[in-house]
Amino acid sequence: MPAPLFPCDASFLSRLALLLPQDCLGPPGPRHLEEPRGRWIGQAGAVALPRTTEEVAIIVCAAAAAHVGVVPWGGGTGLVGGQVMASGAAPLLVSLERMTKTRAVYPEEGVLVVEAGMILADVQAAAAAVGKLFPLALASEGSCRIGGNLAANAGGVNVLRYGNARDLCLGIEAVLPDGTILHGLKRLRKDNAGYDLRHLLIGSEGTLGIITAASLRLFPPPARSVVALLAVHGPEGALALLSLAGDRFPGMISAFELIGRMGFDFLAKVMPDLRQPFAPPPDWSVLIDLGLPAGIEAEAAMAAFYDEAAQAGLVHDGVIATSDAQAAGLWRLREAIPSANRVIGAVSSHDISLPLGALPEFLRRADAAVAALGPFRVNCFGHLGDGNLHYNVFPPKGGRRADYEGCRDRLKTAVHDLVHAMDGSVAAEHGVGRVKVADLELYGDPAKLAAMRAIKAALDPLGIMNPGAVLRTG
Amino acid sequence: MPAPLFPCDASFLSRLALLLPQDCLGPPGPRHLEEPRGRWIGQAGAVALPRTTEEVAIIVCAAAAAHVGVVPWGGGTGLVGGQVMASGAAPLLVSLERMTKTRAVYPEEGVLVVEAGMILADVQAAAAAVGKLFPLALASEGSCRIGGNLAANAGGVNVLRYGNARDLCLGIEAVLPDGTILHGLKRLRKDNAGYDLRHLLIGSEGTLGIITAASLRLFPPPARSVVALLAVHGPEGALALLSLAGDRFPGMISAFELIGRMGFDFLAKVMPDLRQPFAPPPDWSVLIDLGLPAGIEAEAAMAAFYDEAAQAGLVHDGVIATSDAQAAGLWRLREAIPSANRVIGAVSSHDISLPLGALPEFLRRADAAVAALGPFRVNCFGHLGDGNLHYNVFPPKGGRRADYEGCRDRLKTAVHDLVHAMDGSVAAEHGVGRVKVADLELYGDPAKLAAMRAIKAALDPLGIMNPGAVLRTG
Repeated sequence: MPAPLFPCDASFLSRLALLLPQDCLGPPGPRHLEEPRGRWIGQAGAVALPRTTEEVAIIVCAAAAAHVGVVPWGGGTGLVGGQVMASGAAPLLVSLERMTKTRAVYPEEGVLVVEAGMILADVQAAAAAVGKLFPLALASEGSCRIGGNLAANAGGVNVLRYGNARDLCLGIEAVLPDGTILHGLKRLRKDNAGYDLRHLLIGSEGTLGIITAASLRLFPPPARSVVALLAVHGPEGALALLSLAGDRFPGMISAFELIGRMGFDFLAKVMPDLRQPFAPPPDWSVLIDLGLPAGIEAEAAMAAFYDEAAQAGLVHDGVIATSDAQAAGLWRLREAIPSANRVIGAVSSHDISLPLGALPEFLRRADAAVAALGPFRVNCFGHLGDGNLHYNVFPPKGGRRADYEGCRDRLKTAVHDLVHAMDGSVAAEHGVGRVKVADLELYGDPAKLAAMRAIKAALDPLGIMNPGAVLRTG
Repeated sequence: MPAPLFPCDASFLSRLALLLPQDCLGPPGPRHLEEPRGRWIGQAGAVALPRTTEEVAIIVCAAAAAHVGVVPWGGGTGLVGGQVMASGAAPLLVSLERMTKTRAVYPEEGVLVVEAGMILADVQAAAAAVGKLFPLALASEGSCRIGGNLAANAGGVNVLRYGNARDLCLGIEAVLPDGTILHGLKRLRKDNAGYDLRHLLIGSEGTLGIITAASLRLFPPPARSVVALLAVHGPEGALALLSLAGDRFPGMISAFELIGRMGFDFLAKVMPDLRQPFAPPPDWSVLIDLGLPAGIEAEAAMAAFYDEAAQAGLVHDGVIATSDAQAAGLWRLREAIPSANRVIGAVSSHDISLPLGALPEFLRRADAAVAALGPFRVNCFGHLGDGNLHYNVFPPKGGRRADYEGCRDRLKTAVHDLVHAMDGSVAAEHGVGRVKVADLELYGDPAKLAAMRAIKAALDPLGIMNPGAVLRTG
C-alpha cells in the first residue's frame, strides 16, 4: 500500500516552476474541473500545460519525487470521472492541450504519428488530407483528444468494422509513473519483441502513465457509402438483420446502430425541428452504414439488401439515403440522441455490452427489472454490431430527475447485476474511471483484479498516476 | 531477483502425483525436447498432461510451492526456443495436448470458444463446420496448438486482412504464476473493465501464465477467392502494387506475399517435381490472394487489376489461377519455401519487420552487408503486406552450413543492427523465446525493458513461469 500523497501546493509548484518554461503552470480553469454530465466537480492544485514529451517527463519526475498525484487531462469529455478527482490530496492536472502536432505522416504505409493532445476531429482531418480514413468516430470528436481516446480505449460508431481505439494504434510514446519515457512509436504491423505495453497502457485510463504520442493506422476510405434507416421487428430482428448484412457485405459494414422508439420520442420533444422519417416512429430501428468498394453500386446494393430483408420478414419499413445530405440527416438523428437525453435528464445511464446472442433476452429482463422499480422510461440505443448498448433510464413522463435521484443506485444495481449474470460488461466503451471502481470490484474476476493491483504497484509504486481511477487507493 | 529454482525431481513429482489423476505425469518424449530447426535439445524432469484447467492450476500451485520451473508446451513448433529450456534446473513441462475440446460455438455471434491444446487446423475446421472462417493460417497449422499461437501472438499469411493472433481473440482463460485461474473467456467486442490482461498474456510466451482456453473471433468466409502470382519490378514495384491493390480492394486482400528468386531456385533444386509457372523465375514476385464478396466477379477483377498494374509498369508477367487446384498450386509454391530452406540449411535466419516504406532500402543495405561478410546466398520471402520478411542467409552454392557456423553471429548482428537502425523489429512474428533475449536487451527500449521486468516480478515473483524466455533469469 503506497503512503498517502501530498497535495499539489505552493511549495511543490514553486519547485516545479524552476524546472519548466515560464508559462507551463497555472490555476485550473472551470473546464478542467467540470465534466459533461455535471455530476462531479474536480479539484486540482494547478494545471500543467507542457509543450513536449520531455516537459511531461519533468513534471511526472517532480510529482514522483514529491509524492504528488497526477491527473492526465485530455479533452475532458470522459463520462466516468476518469479525469475528475473530486476528493483526496489536490493533484496536479497535466493537460496535453498544447501537444497537438503531427509528428509524421506516411500515406503509402497508412500511418499517421501525432501528439496525444490532438483533437480527434483534427486527426480525422489529417488523415483525410492525405486521402485516408482514420475511422475512430464518436459524439465528442470535436473536443476529445486522441491521447484520451487511447487512454480510455474509446469505441464509437465504427468499431464493428475497424475496431476500438486500441486496434487503430500501432505504437505509443508515454511517460511512465517514474518519469521515464517509453519510446514505442513503431509503425510495424508485426512486432513480438516482448510484452505488449501499448495494449497495457491503452485502456488503463492514465493510471499507468501518460500517453504523449501515438502511431495510428489509416485506411483507404470506402469508394462509396450508403446509409439507411430500417424499421425492424424487435431486437431479434435487428440481430438477424446484422447477421444477413454480415454475410452480404463482409467487412463492409461501417456502422450498425440500434435506436429504440424512445430515442425518437425524445428527439421530437427536444428537437422538434429535426425531421424524422417515420410517423409514428417504429419500436426498433437500425441505422446501417455500408462503406463499399468501387465496383458495387451502393444504392442498388442497399435496395437489394432491403428487399431481401423484407422478404425474410426482418424489416417492415425503411428509408435509404440517396444523397450525402440525406445520409447526414439520418446520422444526425442517431447522433442527436445523447444530446436529447441530457436535456431530458437520465436518472441512471448504463454503458454496457453483452454477447450478441444475449441481447434480446437482456432487454426483456432489464425492462422488467426497471419497471419493477417504478414507472421509468428507458431509452436504449447504441452500437448493436458491437453488442454495446447505452441503456439509459429516465423519469416517468412529466417527472423530474431530481425526484428520482434516490432510485439511481437501485436502478444501476438491477441493470448491472443482470449484465454481469449474462456474461456482459458494465464498462463497455466509456471505461471504469472513478464511477465504476466499486462495480469492477464487485463484478470483476478476482484473479484479474489481483493481477491489476500487482501491475499497478509494480509500475506506479507511489500511486501517483490518476489516483483512485480504475483501482481504489488506500 | 528471485531465488534460484529447484529441479523437477523425484521428490517433487511424487508429491505432485498425489494431487493429480494417475496418468497425468510421465517422462518427456523426444518430441517434447526437440525443436523444428534442431538447434537445441531441451531438458525436463517430467511432462505433465492435464485434462482440465483445474489440473493446470494444481500443477502450477505445486510448482510455485516448490520453486520448480514450469515450461508451457503447445505443439512444439516455436522457432525461437520458447518451449525449449536447455539449461538450468530441470523444469516441469506442462503440455496442453489433452485439452483439445470445443467449449462452445456461437455461429451467429462469430465466436468459438476452445481449449488451448486444440491444433490450429482443428480450430480452422471447427469454424468451417459452422460456415465461418478462422483466419489464422501458418506453415505449422497441422501441429501447432492455439494456446501456443496466442502465447506467441502468431502471425502467418492472413495478418494483412485479419490481424495477428491477438486480434482474433476476444478473451482468454489462463492459469497465473501463483496458480489462480484468470476467468476471462468473455465474448464481447467492447469491454473496458480494467487493464487488458488478455493482451498482456498474449505474446508473453508463457512467462506470465499458461493460457488454457480462448474465445476466438470467426468471420464470414469470402464468397469468392482468387489467387495470382505476379512478377514485379523489385521491392519498390511490390510496394506500389500493394498500394494499388489496397485502393482497389480495400479490406479484401487476404494475403500479399513476397517471393525472391532464390526461393524458386531452392524449390527447383529440392523439389524438382513442383511445377513452377515462370522459367526463368523472376527476381521478385508477389502472391496475392483476394477474398471477395458476392457481386464481384473474382477472376475478372483480378484480370482487370493485372492489366491496370501492367499499364502502370508495376508487373511484367503473371499467372492468375482459374481453378481451386491452380490456386492451391500457387500457394504450395509459397508454402514449400520454408521446407526447401531447411533442406538447403540456413546459416542464419531472421524474422524481421520494417516500416513498409523502408523495405526497399533495407533490402539493398542488408544484401550489401551480407555480401561484405562472404559469398552468401540470401533467400528473402515473407508477408510483404505486414512489412514482415524472412531474410535467411545460406552458404554459397556448393557450400555446407557446417563450414559457416562461425559466421552466424556476425551475419545476425549485421542484419539485426540494420533492422534496428531502420526502426524495425528483430522479433516480428516468431517472438523472442530464448534465442533473442540478448537482442531484446540490446535493441529494446530501456523503459520498456524495465517495465517488463517489473511486471514479470509482480506477477511471477518466484520466476517459475518459462524461466529464461523473453527475459533473462538471475
